[in-house]
Amino acid sequence: MSRTEKTVGELASLVGGQIIGSGESEIKRVASLDAAQQGEIAYVEDENFFESARVSQASCVIVPENSELSLPSQIKVKNPKLAFALIAEVLHPPKQREPEIHQSAVIAETADIALQVFIGAFVCVGENSKIGSGTQIRAGAKIGDNVTVGSDCVIHPNVFLEDGVTIGDRVILHAGVVIGTDGFGYVRGDMSYHKFPQIGTVVIEDNVELGANTTVDRGALGRTRIGKGTKLDNMVHVGHNCDIGERVVIAAQTGISGSVTIEDDCVIGGQVGFGDHIHVQSGAIIGSKAGVLPGKIVRPGVWWGIPIQPLDQYKRLNAHLSRVPAMREELKALKDRVAELERQLLNRDGKD
Amino acid sequence: MSRTEKTVGELASLVGGQIIGSGESEIKRVASLDAAQQGEIAYVEDENFFESARVSQASCVIVPENSELSLPSQIKVKNPKLAFALIAEVLHPPKQREPEIHQSAVIAETADIALQVFIGAFVCVGENSKIGSGTQIRAGAKIGDNVTVGSDCVIHPNVFLEDGVTIGDRVILHAGVVIGTDGFGYVRGDMSYHKFPQIGTVVIEDNVELGANTTVDRGALGRTRIGKGTKLDNMVHVGHNCDIGERVVIAAQTGISGSVTIEDDCVIGGQVGFGDHIHVQSGAIIGSKAGVLPGKIVRPGVWWGIPIQPLDQYKRLNAHLSRVPAMREELKALKDRVAELERQLLNRDGKD
Amino acid sequence: MSRTEKTVGELASLVGGQIIGSGESEIKRVASLDAAQQGEIAYVEDENFFESARVSQASCVIVPENSELSLPSQIKVKNPKLAFALIAEVLHPPKQREPEIHQSAVIAETADIALQVFIGAFVCVGENSKIGSGTQIRAGAKIGDNVTVGSDCVIHPNVFLEDGVTIGDRVILHAGVVIGTDGFGYVRGDMSYHKFPQIGTVVIEDNVELGANTTVDRGALGRTRIGKGTKLDNMVHVGHNCDIGERVVIAAQTGISGSVTIEDDCVIGGQVGFGDHIHVQSGAIIGSKAGVLPGKIVRPGVWWGIPIQPLDQYKRLNAHLSRVPAMREELKALKDRVAELERQLLNRDGKD
Repeated sequence: MSRTEKTVGELASLVGGQIIGSGESEIKRVASLDAAQQGEIAYVEDENFFESARVSQASCVIVPENSELSLPSQIKVKNPKLAFALIAEVLHPPKQREPEIHQSAVIAETADIALQVFIGAFVCVGENSKIGSGTQIRAGAKIGDNVTVGSDCVIHPNVFLEDGVTIGDRVILHAGVVIGTDGFGYVRGDMSYHKFPQIGTVVIEDNVELGANTTVDRGALGRTRIGKGTKLDNMVHVGHNCDIGERVVIAAQTGISGSVTIEDDCVIGGQVGFGDHIHVQSGAIIGSKAGVLPGKIVRPGVWWGIPIQPLDQYKRLNAHLSRVPAMREELKALKDRVAELERQLLNRDGKD
Repeated sequence: MSRTEKTVGELASLVGGQIIGSGESEIKRVASLDAAQQGEIAYVEDENFFESARVSQASCVIVPENSELSLPSQIKVKNPKLAFALIAEVLHPPKQREPEIHQSAVIAETADIALQVFIGAFVCVGENSKIGSGTQIRAGAKIGDNVTVGSDCVIHPNVFLEDGVTIGDRVILHAGVVIGTDGFGYVRGDMSYHKFPQIGTVVIEDNVELGANTTVDRGALGRTRIGKGTKLDNMVHVGHNCDIGERVVIAAQTGISGSVTIEDDCVIGGQVGFGDHIHVQSGAIIGSKAGVLPGKIVRPGVWWGIPIQPLDQYKRLNAHLSRVPAMREELKALKDRVAELERQLLNRDGKD
Repeated sequence: MSRTEKTVGELASLVGGQIIGSGESEIKRVASLDAAQQGEIAYVEDENFFESARVSQASCVIVPENSELSLPSQIKVKNPKLAFALIAEVLHPPKQREPEIHQSAVIAETADIALQVFIGAFVCVGENSKIGSGTQIRAGAKIGDNVTVGSDCVIHPNVFLEDGVTIGDRVILHAGVVIGTDGFGYVRGDMSYHKFPQIGTVVIEDNVELGANTTVDRGALGRTRIGKGTKLDNMVHVGHNCDIGERVVIAAQTGISGSVTIEDDCVIGGQVGFGDHIHVQSGAIIGSKAGVLPGKIVRPGVWWGIPIQPLDQYKRLNAHLSRVPAMREELKALKDRVAELERQLLNRDGKD
């Protein structure tokens, strides 16, 4: 949440956009159309918000390239929301913290801390762990032994990384994230459960972001992996030996049992539940609150419901089900008509 | 969990109740009817528990005003459970901690800490943050820069408040609460996701209580708000830009996506899922495990199911659905009868 | 994740198994059949994996006692997976930490810490709390006043135990666990909610394991209990006054409202929701994502769905429901046939 300042022209060139009107205004912040003031830039995606764009106080508005808005200062681009995000990255870079190791931090002598690292108060870093350049380890984070954290990461307060975990570059772990605890595996004995060994590892690849209080268990014997550029929301549970691909998006409170594979570019809603040994193929989209049975192969497409079905089929079935009360009425009426026919035929037989 | 001691008379006057029997007994604690002993006060709400009240060892029982129980010492009130809660507030006030700043705490020089504040071990308070009088910040809590915490709050261990968050008076944040982390918003580029700016704020108003490990994301561009007197259970997720009104009650593990409005006096069950941009009108009640589709307007009344329907309708539909197996039988029988009729008519045609 | 080393003979005798082939090989680690190398032991449960066993590089494979595999070194046992777990307990004992009280820890003078205890950095232990021999309290864990922790426990980083909580022996609490916070109980007044007293306790019995970020609320007036040998996964919510029996297994993200009883030896899936005052009888199995209505008595057997039904009945009903679209077609066709019959009879009446 630091700030910097750019001209409209600099921002347009950053996103490969075309300036309409003045390119000289200084832009300090991004804002929504409604709230934007002098010195702020907003964006508009479609015609529904053109009127808001017309009355916005923003110094500049990012607009779709084929729009015909008349505004004092516009940047025309193909994808205004993406341009807005890219501009925000420049105007509001993540908070930088000067390299420092707080005097209260407890760093093992064998730990290998790069020069340009921020380590906050009450942080622990264990034996043989490595912290890459540009990384921030904020107050109260606890890092075990033999952990590798790449460069330019932000490890937020009270995160815990268990022994042996590997974190790539530019990873963001929000407060309360827990990585590398034992998976949930037991073998029933006569009158007790014995822990199935949970001695594997976790690998979190580059550019991953994990939301607050999300947990990722270590592999039982192998590893748990979260691929490059994948984003998880708050309180997601990732079980042991899961293999989650690249650019996967998973919304809050979804739970993933052990040994689930989710291939690249899947989109998973919130509060979804996965049984174990599921294989989700690249490009699948699973709606919020869905339930996926153990062992299921989920093909590309949009899926919904408990247990999941293709969205079209789910909608069709539900439309049919909503007709059941009417069907009962129709069935009853039909029975009466059949009874009447039977009565008539019987009467006639009597008459014959 | 401190304790104090009052006479039955003092307690009756506190809750505006009528004493039946002695008002002199000293009461030290509240207890359930079954477990209560000498020196303890219990309550009974309705006739189902009158027999328990008769055999209770409690020194005094709070009873409904129209009840005709014969007990050694009673307080008659309109709402016994409420009176019990009010009496418990007096007999068991929240634990007080003497004002102190633990020597291990790391407090920025620019922080403004009121005189009567308890700050526990391993706490951080960042630049320009303000802590109001009577507030307790317990061990391991981490408070960022430019945070305002009002008076008489209890911030339990390992809570994290990110930069710029505002907390009202008499707020209770249980252990592991995380407030002000980035919301979950990305814009898809060609082969990666870019963070949609998450640069807004969070405002938690007076008398709010948030359960353990609950998370509240900051607004993307605006703010996330939780209104006065609202109570959230454990592990609730509140997304960016949500506006939750006053006196709302939300049970555990419910997840609320971005830009959801919940008006005053709603009651939301546990494990409910809200899509984004939902508007729940004042007085709505949503049952546990319900799912609310994005953009939905939820009117006052009782709602249930995935997706939500009025409870009556939900029950009716489910009653109908449970009749489907019988309907299939009836349909089959009817088909046989129609076939028989067709056969008879055909035979007769043959005979004619 | 320490290591030790045993011969095949020693391991076979540990699990009461029969050695086929050499008993002399030194075994250092457990591994999966596929990944195992020289010095590692794997297991195979059934014929589906016999081929993998044949090509495995493991120095020894644990096999079912009636199998007829030809491998260089085998241990035959009744339950290979259990034997594997028992062997892993020996080869990979939990990490030991030398007794130590880190100089940064804040321990109340009245606390009673056994001699052989590890207390990590930034730990707090409150007044009159007791920590048993062999227990590890890892960095950043916070333990309140009057807490009892038994012997040989592992309290992982950033755990919080509130005042008065009791923890048995050999209990494992993973990072971020919160025990003993106020339950979620309020009484509505005119224009606000008052806290129903939350002044009870929590008892966690021997050999319990709680997953990361799991929360257990204290009893309102009585106690919340988790019985011996019970295992909870990550982010499980246990409400006030729950009584969970022995050897119960509960998967991730399940939420249990107040005053729920779950008897011994139940198995509960993930993301299950329990209303309050439910009684689950010993041996019941409840499938993932199920919802149990308040006050329900759940008998032994397998349960499924929202609200729960016996699994067989659930499957049968769903099979019927999937036939509804076809039923609508059939009903329509039947109406046409009845109309045709009616027409014919009418015509005939005309002719008569």
